[in-house]
Amino acid sequence: MSKKIIIVGGVAGGATAAARLRRIDETSTIVLFERGEHISFANCGLPYYIGETIKDRNKLLVQTVEGMSRRFNLDIRNLTEVVEINREKKTITTAKNLQTNEVYEESYDTLILSPGAKPIVPNIEGLGDAKNVFTLRNIPDTDKIKTFVDEQHPKRAVVIGGGFIGLEMAENLVDRGIEVTVVELGKQVMAPIDYEMASIVHSHLRDKGVNLILEDGVKAFKNNGSTIELASGTNICADMAILSIGVSPENKLAVMAGLDVGQRGGIQVNEYLQTNDPDIYALGDAIEVKDYINGNAAMIPLAGPANRQGRIVANNVYGKKEMYKGTLGTAIAKVFNLAVAATGLNEKQLKQLGKTYQAVHIHPSSHAGYYPGAAPIALKLLFNPETGAIYGAQAVGEDGADKRIDVISTAIKGNLTVYDLTEIELSYAPPFSSAKDPVNMAGYVATNIMEGSVDTVQWDEIDDIVENGGILIDVREPIEREMGFITGSINIPLGEIRDRLHEIPKDQTIYVSCQVGLRGYLASRILSENGYDVKNLDGGWKTYSAVYN
Amino acid sequence: MSKKIIIVGGVAGGATAAARLRRIDETSTIVLFERGEHISFANCGLPYYIGETIKDRNKLLVQTVEGMSRRFNLDIRNLTEVVEINREKKTITTAKNLQTNEVYEESYDTLILSPGAKPIVPNIEGLGDAKNVFTLRNIPDTDKIKTFVDEQHPKRAVVIGGGFIGLEMAENLVDRGIEVTVVELGKQVMAPIDYEMASIVHSHLRDKGVNLILEDGVKAFKNNGSTIELASGTNICADMAILSIGVSPENKLAVMAGLDVGQRGGIQVNEYLQTNDPDIYALGDAIEVKDYINGNAAMIPLAGPANRQGRIVANNVYGKKEMYKGTLGTAIAKVFNLAVAATGLNEKQLKQLGKTYQAVHIHPSSHAGYYPGAAPIALKLLFNPETGAIYGAQAVGEDGADKRIDVISTAIKGNLTVYDLTEIELSYAPPFSSAKDPVNMAGYVATNIMEGSVDTVQWDEIDDIVENGGILIDVREPIEREMGFITGSINIPLGEIRDRLHEIPKDQTIYVSCQVGLRGYLASRILSENGYDVKNLDGGWKTYSAVYN
Ligand SMILES: Cc1cc2nc3c(=O)[nH]c(=O)nc-3n(C[C@H](O)[C@H](O)[C@H](O)COP(=O)(O)OP(=O)(O)OC[C@H]3O[C@@H](n4cnc5c(N)ncnc54)[C@H](O)[C@@H]3O)c2cc1C
Ligand SMILES: Cc1cc2nc3c(=O)[nH]c(=O)nc-3n(C[C@H](O)[C@H](O)[C@H](O)COP(=O)(O)OP(=O)(O)OC[C@H]3O[C@@H](n4cnc5c(N)ncnc54)[C@H](O)[C@@H]3O)c2cc1C
Ligand SMILES: CC(C)(COP(=O)(O)OP(=O)(O)OC[C@H]1O[C@@H](n2cnc3c(N)ncnc32)[C@H](O)[C@@H]1OP(=O)(O)O)[C@@H](O)C(=O)NCCC(=O)NCCS
Ligand SMILES: CC(C)(COP(=O)(O)OP(=O)(O)OC[C@H]1O[C@@H](n2cnc3c(N)ncnc32)[C@H](O)[C@@H]1OP(=O)(O)O)[C@@H](O)C(=O)NCCC(=O)NCCS
Repeated sequence: MSKKIIIVGGVAGGATAAARLRRIDETSTIVLFERGEHISFANCGLPYYIGETIKDRNKLLVQTVEGMSRRFNLDIRNLTEVVEINREKKTITTAKNLQTNEVYEESYDTLILSPGAKPIVPNIEGLGDAKNVFTLRNIPDTDKIKTFVDEQHPKRAVVIGGGFIGLEMAENLVDRGIEVTVVELGKQVMAPIDYEMASIVHSHLRDKGVNLILEDGVKAFKNNGSTIELASGTNICADMAILSIGVSPENKLAVMAGLDVGQRGGIQVNEYLQTNDPDIYALGDAIEVKDYINGNAAMIPLAGPANRQGRIVANNVYGKKEMYKGTLGTAIAKVFNLAVAATGLNEKQLKQLGKTYQAVHIHPSSHAGYYPGAAPIALKLLFNPETGAIYGAQAVGEDGADKRIDVISTAIKGNLTVYDLTEIELSYAPPFSSAKDPVNMAGYVATNIMEGSVDTVQWDEIDDIVENGGILIDVREPIEREMGFITGSINIPLGEIRDRLHEIPKDQTIYVSCQVGLRGYLASRILSENGYDVKNLDGGWKTYSAVYN
Repeated sequence: MSKKIIIVGGVAGGATAAARLRRIDETSTIVLFERGEHISFANCGLPYYIGETIKDRNKLLVQTVEGMSRRFNLDIRNLTEVVEINREKKTITTAKNLQTNEVYEESYDTLILSPGAKPIVPNIEGLGDAKNVFTLRNIPDTDKIKTFVDEQHPKRAVVIGGGFIGLEMAENLVDRGIEVTVVELGKQVMAPIDYEMASIVHSHLRDKGVNLILEDGVKAFKNNGSTIELASGTNICADMAILSIGVSPENKLAVMAGLDVGQRGGIQVNEYLQTNDPDIYALGDAIEVKDYINGNAAMIPLAGPANRQGRIVANNVYGKKEMYKGTLGTAIAKVFNLAVAATGLNEKQLKQLGKTYQAVHIHPSSHAGYYPGAAPIALKLLFNPETGAIYGAQAVGEDGADKRIDVISTAIKGNLTVYDLTEIELSYAPPFSSAKDPVNMAGYVATNIMEGSVDTVQWDEIDDIVENGGILIDVREPIEREMGFITGSINIPLGEIRDRLHEIPKDQTIYVSCQVGLRGYLASRILSENGYDVKNLDGGWKTYSAVYN
């Protein structure tokens, strides 16, 4: 089945496809074109090399051109850009090679596009003149930023955009002793999670000395970039800036060749990852995928899916007909001491889609509280309250957030419901978890809502309720209220509630709250058993105060 | 629906049942009998208090009698043993209360048994006279051991039994500066995992200074326990000994009352956790459960299942008819720096059951190798090679073993196959995982076997093969062989194999091996594409040498 296969792009998706192609078949000719010098490098490690957590630059080079060529018998042409696809002739054309001055056509039987996505660089006033504004995608970008930091010793940096690359850069620049300002246009960082979850990250960034500016954007770079003017009028001094407001698919080749692209520019592919030209496959950051849960078109530029797709494309080139079933968008980032992780749909998306959903927030420990080192995890679960189907989850914490999101992501792939979450058997010993793991606990809390044993209100509803005369009973101990409480709440500690029922009117809904939701739940059970109509503040003071404190 | 419910046993299962019963119904009378002084204590934390990792004894007391009584309006009678169940009268009889001298009957509508399991104390010569032999189940046991260590400053301890409680005690005694010998009758510690996986634990224990004696048992305690004689004739000096050879269900009450018990003494229950007397439920360590995968009767004394069953029993007492679907046996223990985790069936069990299965061993990193702190995980996956159904998995490593086992455990609950493991989307950023997570990788390796793209041999087959004239090619670099290699193997580094095919005979099966199995797989792909019949050593030198080095 000897074929000639050309791959455009030699990193996550392209290199993986090449390796798998060769493993399937020894006889094919596989030509890998890469515009840059390096193939198969660790994109995801770049910020950590700048921050000097990764000390050895060679560690970023997972495979070298020579090593990979030899191991997989590939014809790798780095420093060679593909500038045109000639579909009728089934050839590609290269740009002029800067070293050899050569331009040539190369024919293919099958073409694989894994060109990735490039940082978005908007048309901002003064950007052209600014010498200290960087984007980060590859090794040369990294070298530029690191050299600048090493040699110019910048004191103040501005990171524009609060996505995961922006926040990783913020952390790594702080690690280099630089004062960092993060400017984010939206009202929160880390779009995959919801606002109240991101609020935990906001506090943490500020605790770490980051100057976080939300709901403001860059209007102009002034004085060659040393002053950044925001839309609000604020001016920030900046010795350097990182532009990390997102990426856009590298679709130029595809568009020129008449391949279909979606609304946001992603190359469109069928379930076998074929473009509208059956001899051309596309994958990775450059393509539009199907959201695993709702089937809508989505752009999800992540390394796991790119690697996975690379393998599927290779299989399909050799006739395997393996389907790519969509992307769930499971993602994680380290933000200083916190892990911020998510899978599936978030509440913003569910609202937009007009879905009926229910959220629960819990604050369990990463492992048994009596064993040293346990850290709280803020865990949010979103589900369909009619069927129990899991829509998504988010976790923020210093330890164990990754594990819980991975378990829930696996549960979604297994079509498990929130009922099943109560039954999954997770490994427990005190250093690792609790006898009721946080995921089981989220399942309990969710099923209680489904079964009507508790009714909840959310952090963003309670203030209005209290302002409009709703009765909110804080069932914590008085001493806990000294650290803060919801304005207008009255205090009846859980332990006294059975004896003080006479103080609580029966003619209106009673709202209860506590620290994390558990005691509020216990109180609401006591009250409903006593004939009250009662609602518990989901996630308690901890979720509420993450936003309002 | 007011009822009178009696619970026997006030810790994991019993206390959880009590709490849930009250949450469902405020009006029932709930009487909780506990033989000991403490209810609701952290059994699983006990070794760590002895070792002083947990410093505050109060932390072991998750709930006090007073606090729990008040919170859940319970009638808790600690220091009160139930000695008889009078099924016709629907009463229980208590033993004489040591403080009040009282003996009484108490009636029930529903009786819940969660009496747990007690350490097995075999009839060993001299045990009666030995003053320094301890078992560990509860707070008084813990106090005794800790006081002995604090006051007698033992220098040498012998732990009898290499199960998880034994190894936790070994570690905690080492932490107290004691020289520890572990004596285990079987050929491996940690029965839930297989021998080659346990071999990693064996080395680690020895590295940590533990004197590990396998395949030997205690024959006699001599000189009041200060000398322990083994079956082999060896005598060991011991200032103290921990007897931790397993637990047996506390079934005395049940047996006396004519409740059915299984072969190994576990109280038999139906899927609603009812005994053969429908007014009596039983749960926790005392019951026989159904193995989740094969449906056979099993004894799985773990806290997660006990907690879960406690909640189900409470639900069913109030008519919910919730089914307990069996126990997968997901378990974990910290053994010094290692986590040792497992879920589902192991190879020993699969052999016993006569199942067709396939094993794969991989050795991925806990997270991206280029990010500091990555540690190898030895991951073993067992599956049905015809259907791809997952039977079980085992993981041993310093970091991230718990996460991978939890993901696979969830996958089993979701009926996912090894094909699905390649597709699950796990959270990836360099500090947490790799773009192909170890679980995905195990899925790749397994599906390659299913699809016939590679054939493997196991660590315990290769020596025989080589002895009988099989050709084994070690495809590592010569320098790697300096650390050890399989006797009789010849060396052709992977990078040279395409050029040296002429050296490799085609008339017999060729075996290949490398460090972890990956390069061997690459070599076997090259060879099979070139017409060879080839088998790769699964898990490579790393799995092999864990046993033989
Ligand atoms: C700083 C940073 C951190 C990241 N961290 C994470 C993380 O923690 N987790 C995660 O999941 N993802 C992370 N990502 C995203 C991840 O790296 C990408 O999702 C993944 O690399 C996409 O793979 P790809 O093959 O589609 O594109 P890429 O890996 O970007 O490879 C595309 C290659 O194609 C080349 N190319 C493009 N056009 C041409 C052409 N015409 N001719 C020749 N060559 C061409 C490009 O030069 C490029 O090298 C990070 C990305 C960056 C930049
Ligand atoms: C040292 C140690 C470490 C452990 N570590 C782990 C771990 O890391 N992970 C894990 O999953 N599991 C662990 N376990 C096991 C876990 O503790 C048990 O599985 C769990 O406690 C079982 O719950 P249960 O309710 O069945 O029994 P228990 O929690 O043992 O409670 C039973 C109670 O019933 C009382 N009782 C018995 N008979 C009577 C009677 N006739 N009248 C009155 N009271 C009675 C007993 O005094 C006892 O307190 C560990 C156990 C021990 C001892
Ligand atoms: C380095 C690179 C080329 C490797 O691609 P690859 O060979 O497909 O991937 P790996 O080295 O992880 O090996 C995976 C293969 O080895 C096999 N394998 C892994 N461990 C094995 C073991 N112990 N025994 C047998 N086979 C094993 C897998 O089955 C898989 O083969 P398959 O796809 O044919 O099933 C590619 O991953 C890459 O370029 N990575 C860097 C870029 C990147 O991903 N960036 C984003 C993240 S920073
Ligand atoms: C302490 C003990 C009595 C608590 O039992 P419990 O009340 O069932 O358990 P928890 O305190 O974990 O609370 C769980 C309940 O709170 C609810 N809950 C937890 N977090 C919540 C939150 N944030 N919001 C609302 N509800 C919450 C859960 O839904 C569950 O209620 P449900 O069973 O009615 O659904 C029992 O676990 C125990 O005795 N433990 C120690 C003994 C032991 O387990 N040993 C072995 C391990 S060391």
